[in-house]
Amino acid sequence: MSSAATSSPPPTLLWRNDCLELLDQTRLPTEVLVHVCEDVPAAHEAIRTLRVRGAPAIGIAAAYGVCLGAKLGSESVAEVRSAALAAADHLATSRPTAVNLFWALDRMRVVVKSFPTAGTPAELQQALLAEAVAIHDEDRQMCHAIGKHGAELLADGTGVLTHCNAGGLATSEFGTALAAIYAAQAAGKRIHVYADETRPLLQGARLTTWELMQAGVPVTLICDSMAAQVMREGRVQAVIVGADRIAANGDAANKIGTYGVALLAAAHEIPFYVAAPSSTFDLSLASGDAIPIEQRAAEEITAGFGRVTAPAGVQVYNPAFDVTPARLIAAIITERGVIHQPNREKIAELGI
Amino acid sequence: MSSAATSSPPPTLLWRNDCLELLDQTRLPTEVLVHVCEDVPAAHEAIRTLRVRGAPAIGIAAAYGVCLGAKLGSESVAEVRSAALAAADHLATSRPTAVNLFWALDRMRVVVKSFPTAGTPAELQQALLAEAVAIHDEDRQMCHAIGKHGAELLADGTGVLTHCNAGGLATSEFGTALAAIYAAQAAGKRIHVYADETRPLLQGARLTTWELMQAGVPVTLICDSMAAQVMREGRVQAVIVGADRIAANGDAANKIGTYGVALLAAAHEIPFYVAAPSSTFDLSLASGDAIPIEQRAAEEITAGFGRVTAPAGVQVYNPAFDVTPARLIAAIITERGVIHQPNREKIAELGI
Repeated sequence: MSSAATSSPPPTLLWRNDCLELLDQTRLPTEVLVHVCEDVPAAHEAIRTLRVRGAPAIGIAAAYGVCLGAKLGSESVAEVRSAALAAADHLATSRPTAVNLFWALDRMRVVVKSFPTAGTPAELQQALLAEAVAIHDEDRQMCHAIGKHGAELLADGTGVLTHCNAGGLATSEFGTALAAIYAAQAAGKRIHVYADETRPLLQGARLTTWELMQAGVPVTLICDSMAAQVMREGRVQAVIVGADRIAANGDAANKIGTYGVALLAAAHEIPFYVAAPSSTFDLSLASGDAIPIEQRAAEEITAGFGRVTAPAGVQVYNPAFDVTPARLIAAIITERGVIHQPNREKIAELGI
Repeated sequence: MSSAATSSPPPTLLWRNDCLELLDQTRLPTEVLVHVCEDVPAAHEAIRTLRVRGAPAIGIAAAYGVCLGAKLGSESVAEVRSAALAAADHLATSRPTAVNLFWALDRMRVVVKSFPTAGTPAELQQALLAEAVAIHDEDRQMCHAIGKHGAELLADGTGVLTHCNAGGLATSEFGTALAAIYAAQAAGKRIHVYADETRPLLQGARLTTWELMQAGVPVTLICDSMAAQVMREGRVQAVIVGADRIAANGDAANKIGTYGVALLAAAHEIPFYVAAPSSTFDLSLASGDAIPIEQRAAEEITAGFGRVTAPAGVQVYNPAFDVTPARLIAAIITERGVIHQPNREKIAELGI
């Protein structure tokens, strides 16, 4: 269910009238539409089709998705419990790479499992909603803290290249990578952003430019293939990206193309930063080699934008993410502080 | 003027009925249409809008374009001479980077200027056509020689990454970078090509995949942003690209994104080859810094394929080419032989 937004842009996610409202990111920037999810299948579809995307936002959406499931069983606590756990299990199949999804679902499962047997169905539903709202609120705080820490790394006059969208649209608000830029600008620093368009789904062209323009941050759109040239011309002094999952050693999965950008930054001696909340770390994985990489449909590449642009039957490889090894990362910016030259020991010290 | 092709694909360029027939590359791969240029403005438009593209093919098209101009003045040799030179001057403004354009036009100008005053208008027209046909025929021979030399660099079982289209569609036939692949396959070697889609105009997705599939060469289409990942996964043992202009020191201009691919290849210790006929060298330029880089319209990035995919009014940077420094080039493959670790001395020795 969709409705056109009227005045200022709606938030990335909103719980209202027992439904999850999403700013439909598949329609931006040409249409600003609110997509309403009334049940778990709708939330699953919204995550899978990237109406809501970005690791932190996926986590928040999944938490609210469990609340949508919990609405179903209102006769008994057992029914609510069962419906909520079934929702969590189903939502876990929506996308494989962003660990924030599993982290948020685990928090929701803990609420279900720790709920006292003496409670009422309504009380369990309220407890679940309270946890989802807490995840949402904590994300806001994390984004602002990331922005504060990240801004310290950006001098006045810095050109910043970013890939994909790690902004307010990827989180509750403010973003992770873009939070550093917003905070730097708020502190009076002049920042110019170069936004990779980010094929195949053009999150950079459609989303990052849109939200930066809304915020009055100067931004220039380039094709992914132009990043090296822009660096060579001296237009960029820092790269900041988000992450979907960070292994215990600091290897970071992010949108496909990020690893290449990290190599190009290294070749031009430009620092490469990853900005992400602590919920993005997966300390159960020793290195990035163990991070599952989502493979997506060929049509995203061959017929993504209204016209078929490749021969029928062409073989296509379409990994949605890649892994940047920690050695290429100058620092990981979290809400708890900045980890320079990240490695296993420094990450362990952060106490995530 | 366009007409649908019926049986096997038409050639990239064909002079027939006093007109230049082009396989319209803006319509591939979904439509196979022949675009007929009857006059100089039509040839200029075809080059400018990339109906014909690829440095060698642009040169051939421009040569025939001068013949279209020469048709105008048939009353006197002075008239033919004047019309041909005017055509050459106009065609020189169609695209700035590929030096083959200027090289071919210079050859046509020499024919005009050296034509004996005692000759007839028809004889001058015939002399011009003979020169254009010679340029066309020589290109065929150069492509086959490049293929022969290039194939020697490719072992059986090699994965080859290429960027943009340096195939039969970029030349008279057979290509430059792709010529090496065709010749290797003809020699019984198994080659698998990874084709960068090549934003913004998708020459890789639309043209390279199409012509490789026509030739029965296994090809996998990827987004430009996936090249680093494909290299990291060990799928690629060589990169081969074409060139639009090569400076005296071996710096090579080619489609935007090539420089980035060269850096990624270096990071993965994969040899990076440039394949180009000797007409691509511009020894008047000491280094790649002096190569003019065409800037193209923002709409190619913001609304390229049937849908608007960026906010209205967004600032865009759209250079059509970049320059890969000679230090990143393992070898330049020409029709005269292979220049390993190219530099000024070795290029001078080639006697271009």
